[in-house]
Amino acid sequence: MAGEIEALKNVATRLRINSVKSTEAAGSGHPTSCASLAEIMSVLFLKEMHFKPDSPKNPSNDRFVLSKGHAAPILYAAWSEVGLFPESELLNLRKIDCDLEGHPTPRLPFVDVSTGSLGQGISNAAGMAYVGKYIDKASYRVYCVVGDGESAEGSVWEALAFSSYYKLDNLVIIFDVNRLGQSQPTQLQHDLDTYKKRTEAFGCHSIVVDGHDIQELLKAFSVARTIKDKPVALICKTFKGQGFPGIADQDNWHGKPLGAKAKEVLEHLNAQLKAKDTSGHHLAPLKPKDDCSELKLMGSIKLPSAPQYKLGDQVATRLAYGNALARIGQTCDRVIALDGDTKNSTFSIKLRDVKPNQFIECFIAEQNLVGVAIGCGARGRTIPFASTFAAFFTRAFDQIRMGAVSQTNCNFAGSHVGVSIGEDGPSQMGLEDLAMFRSIIGSTVFYPSDAVSAERAVELAANTPGVCYIRTGRPNQPVIYSPEESFSVGKGKVVRTAGASADHLTVVGGGITISEALKAADILATEKINIRVIDPFTIKPMDKDLLAKAVKETCNKVLTVEDHAPEGGIGDAVSAALSQSGVIHTVHRLGITEIPHSGKPDELIAKYGIDAKAIVRAVKTLLGK
Amino acid sequence: MAGEIEALKNVATRLRINSVKSTEAAGSGHPTSCASLAEIMSVLFLKEMHFKPDSPKNPSNDRFVLSKGHAAPILYAAWSEVGLFPESELLNLRKIDCDLEGHPTPRLPFVDVSTGSLGQGISNAAGMAYVGKYIDKASYRVYCVVGDGESAEGSVWEALAFSSYYKLDNLVIIFDVNRLGQSQPTQLQHDLDTYKKRTEAFGCHSIVVDGHDIQELLKAFSVARTIKDKPVALICKTFKGQGFPGIADQDNWHGKPLGAKAKEVLEHLNAQLKAKDTSGHHLAPLKPKDDCSELKLMGSIKLPSAPQYKLGDQVATRLAYGNALARIGQTCDRVIALDGDTKNSTFSIKLRDVKPNQFIECFIAEQNLVGVAIGCGARGRTIPFASTFAAFFTRAFDQIRMGAVSQTNCNFAGSHVGVSIGEDGPSQMGLEDLAMFRSIIGSTVFYPSDAVSAERAVELAANTPGVCYIRTGRPNQPVIYSPEESFSVGKGKVVRTAGASADHLTVVGGGITISEALKAADILATEKINIRVIDPFTIKPMDKDLLAKAVKETCNKVLTVEDHAPEGGIGDAVSAALSQSGVIHTVHRLGITEIPHSGKPDELIAKYGIDAKAIVRAVKTLLGK
Repeated sequence: MAGEIEALKNVATRLRINSVKSTEAAGSGHPTSCASLAEIMSVLFLKEMHFKPDSPKNPSNDRFVLSKGHAAPILYAAWSEVGLFPESELLNLRKIDCDLEGHPTPRLPFVDVSTGSLGQGISNAAGMAYVGKYIDKASYRVYCVVGDGESAEGSVWEALAFSSYYKLDNLVIIFDVNRLGQSQPTQLQHDLDTYKKRTEAFGCHSIVVDGHDIQELLKAFSVARTIKDKPVALICKTFKGQGFPGIADQDNWHGKPLGAKAKEVLEHLNAQLKAKDTSGHHLAPLKPKDDCSELKLMGSIKLPSAPQYKLGDQVATRLAYGNALARIGQTCDRVIALDGDTKNSTFSIKLRDVKPNQFIECFIAEQNLVGVAIGCGARGRTIPFASTFAAFFTRAFDQIRMGAVSQTNCNFAGSHVGVSIGEDGPSQMGLEDLAMFRSIIGSTVFYPSDAVSAERAVELAANTPGVCYIRTGRPNQPVIYSPEESFSVGKGKVVRTAGASADHLTVVGGGITISEALKAADILATEKINIRVIDPFTIKPMDKDLLAKAVKETCNKVLTVEDHAPEGGIGDAVSAALSQSGVIHTVHRLGITEIPHSGKPDELIAKYGIDAKAIVRAVKTLLGK
Repeated sequence: MAGEIEALKNVATRLRINSVKSTEAAGSGHPTSCASLAEIMSVLFLKEMHFKPDSPKNPSNDRFVLSKGHAAPILYAAWSEVGLFPESELLNLRKIDCDLEGHPTPRLPFVDVSTGSLGQGISNAAGMAYVGKYIDKASYRVYCVVGDGESAEGSVWEALAFSSYYKLDNLVIIFDVNRLGQSQPTQLQHDLDTYKKRTEAFGCHSIVVDGHDIQELLKAFSVARTIKDKPVALICKTFKGQGFPGIADQDNWHGKPLGAKAKEVLEHLNAQLKAKDTSGHHLAPLKPKDDCSELKLMGSIKLPSAPQYKLGDQVATRLAYGNALARIGQTCDRVIALDGDTKNSTFSIKLRDVKPNQFIECFIAEQNLVGVAIGCGARGRTIPFASTFAAFFTRAFDQIRMGAVSQTNCNFAGSHVGVSIGEDGPSQMGLEDLAMFRSIIGSTVFYPSDAVSAERAVELAANTPGVCYIRTGRPNQPVIYSPEESFSVGKGKVVRTAGASADHLTVVGGGITISEALKAADILATEKINIRVIDPFTIKPMDKDLLAKAVKETCNKVLTVEDHAPEGGIGDAVSAALSQSGVIHTVHRLGITEIPHSGKPDELIAKYGIDAKAIVRAVKTLLGK
């Protein structure tokens, strides 16, 4: 035992040495934020976690999330320590041709979720733990290291409330309370008692330990294994820069290599390594229990039958979303829905009604909703659909953005978009959601305009890599596609035309503005004005070819109509596509240009100029009639 | 005393009656969420808060924030009860021509901040309380009513941590624990003890009361006034739909009028009103102490002198931001900066260094940072500048969006944008911030390309109504404008031209891509290719005329270059402007099309194709050379 502790101490010292060396070689990074973690990482990687060090993606492995992603160098040092790659590779930290980046990303096989935007790791870890306990029903445990500075993020408390509500006793959250933030001491500094009270009040079993004492850490992890029906919070008192003489616990050492001090610190650390460091080499990670198998879900999801609507039926796209989710959920038990207490509005409740075990209520905490969904989807264990009002996904933009960095395949569905929701008023109206999801690199943005296409959007999203967003609406809309119509990403539909040479102008909409455009087409037809109406189906990618062809055939004029802010939505997407196409064009746009008021949906789409009458007026003006 | 309590009970009953009647007339709304609040509102408005009921904007009034904005009908009923408008007006709830909207907005004179996206009200209230205690140094107190469902939002806990850290003993937070959420019971239901533990752990003085017992409420508020150096949390046990027979404490009554049940409920409530309800009419709101005066800040802020840089100086725009903030802060003590523990990176620390009382450290909690800033700016008490890394404002998109609904004049400055930050990697790179801020209705988006224009952006933002965003960069950039150059919103600059008829192509950039475009222009000039380089200065509004003129004069070709995702930024803004202009044009765009890697800034702008060489290549390709 004593030899083992010495060995673990040596590991901790080596992790410190490598954190100093690698950041020194990089000329940037956070060695002091690593140093406070050295004993914790040593114990975790060599005495607590069960995993195959040569197979980091093994589904039976324990999971590890470094929520304080800026301590990446010590994570990399730990994986080198267990033999995944040679120590020399650590000196390529932060280089453009090396995936040991400034903050961890899944370009590395041992990283499941990107971290670096603080306070998100626990939600991801909670998602993994939820899947481990309730879906995989496997032995793996989940460990998450959180900084004290980042515990000011509310998302941390959302995640703890979630974890205790769902009794995630396979989850251990390690708080590295090193007292110092980036620019000054943290709010609570070394007030460990308050951390204990807060985490206990949020339902954790909390243990305060000296985070630099290997024996205390070993004991705490061993107690953690005995705790049932609660997540465990290890509140570790540590010092930033621990082990670095003259630097430990001092201000102004955040996020910088040791520079002129490095030599002295390395000499000090090397002197601490026991002369005969053979014991350390006997340490090896504990083997996992092989009780979780590989899955290949992506690409396998199909609606069991064509959508069950008739042309002209009045169905809200949010209802079709719920129907489709329930239908694919019945064909695949790894399709799951996550809700933020809006399930009876988004209709994700449809899946819960038929498959309650594939449904996770996350309550009114959208950051955690998204973080948990990303965690549930990590390593491809599930196909998650997170839904709430479109407006409330803005609450989780940072999590969604980080999801893209995490290479998530998570799907998001936002209902209650635009002024067409009616009386609830602007706080509930999704007016920026298209802009938000379009800006996510690699995303796909579906905006179905009837129930049939909404069901197909769900099916396609389930099989499309990257962040997928489905924009659904509150009001009923007529079904405009036959059940057999086929849809694909980036392919729009001409839903009204009088023929290639007979249309006077192209109108592009989405959701309810397609319904309005079709009404406008009827009105205009009585005056011998023909409009071509295009339903892009996906706003990103936008069907450039279909648009360019239409514009050429309709006097180079396009009208866009959207229940969204003027910037970032359909108008921008159409302008962007045409501007790059080389086709001569003028785009006139209708959208919501001022903060809307409460009112009836029909009154509001009229007041803000996106209804059939407004389209008729704009078309006539554009055609000079 | 007994008569007073009877009178307060009668008020509560009338508030219930009016909540039922108004939602019944509207055909939608949340009467049960109002009912749980009736006694609380009665006591607050008629026995606790000090305000002038005929002058809701009076600066000496106590402030009230209804964080659970869906209980708007009872807020409106309370203002009618104190005589601001006739009861009959309540029947126009949610109508398009009445400002008694579904959720409160500042279209109403008694609403300082919009609510309805849950969990934001405490941050706003904390901002108001901070200003009251430390800036106005006035007697007014701040009251915030929070729902139990919304207390799952992490932002609630960020706000409590902030409020206790700053000892806001002029802030009372009333938790309306009515047990039921929208679609199911809340996580904690009636576990009042856990609410008490959580709020105490977050630094509140917490008092558990029966929220339907007037005497208990009166006593609790009176205790609250004696508490020093802590915010007070009143944990009120209530029942959703209290007072509505057959509805109280029942599921499935969220967000709907009582319909067929309304008549019976109203009869029941009317029967509860004391026959001789004269006592009630003697109740009147308590008078405020007149110790806070009106302010008119907007439009008054000026840099004390021209920016102090020389052409060619190497200065990061984030540093110029900090310099300008310190300079205007010295001319006006109501200019304040708010930080999320990044002040030494965003350089907001410059204001703290010269005016520590005009600086609020909000730690790593961006939602609360933005919510507090909006609260600080409410009623025009301060001109707030909130700054952090641009990427981390995505954390607060919902708060920013609600800020626009709140008619805030708050300014936001995001630093560390794009791949040019270098080694820290994608989690730290602002790549979606232009898209986010452009989508906000009524916003102004500044993207200065040197230090001189950055200082002018700060000055202009301080005087521009609505949400203003300033995008600043990490690397040094050459100063390209003389100190005397003047700037205005919506006016771009031609920073390189060989003359109206001599330019071959227009390049539009922002920030560091302007520096790169100027380098590219030098290289291309040696090959007799002239590019016109346009610095739009504001990305929203975009200078359409300048662009249209340039495009006409340069063969209808534009190249956009931006350190941002391809969607929602400069490329979209330029395409949108030109597509609407009627000018023939083709836009080719350079931007960050994949999740970036860590690396040196120069390597990264080269790898992702937005450096001078990439511009040269693109220009030549576009010109067929």
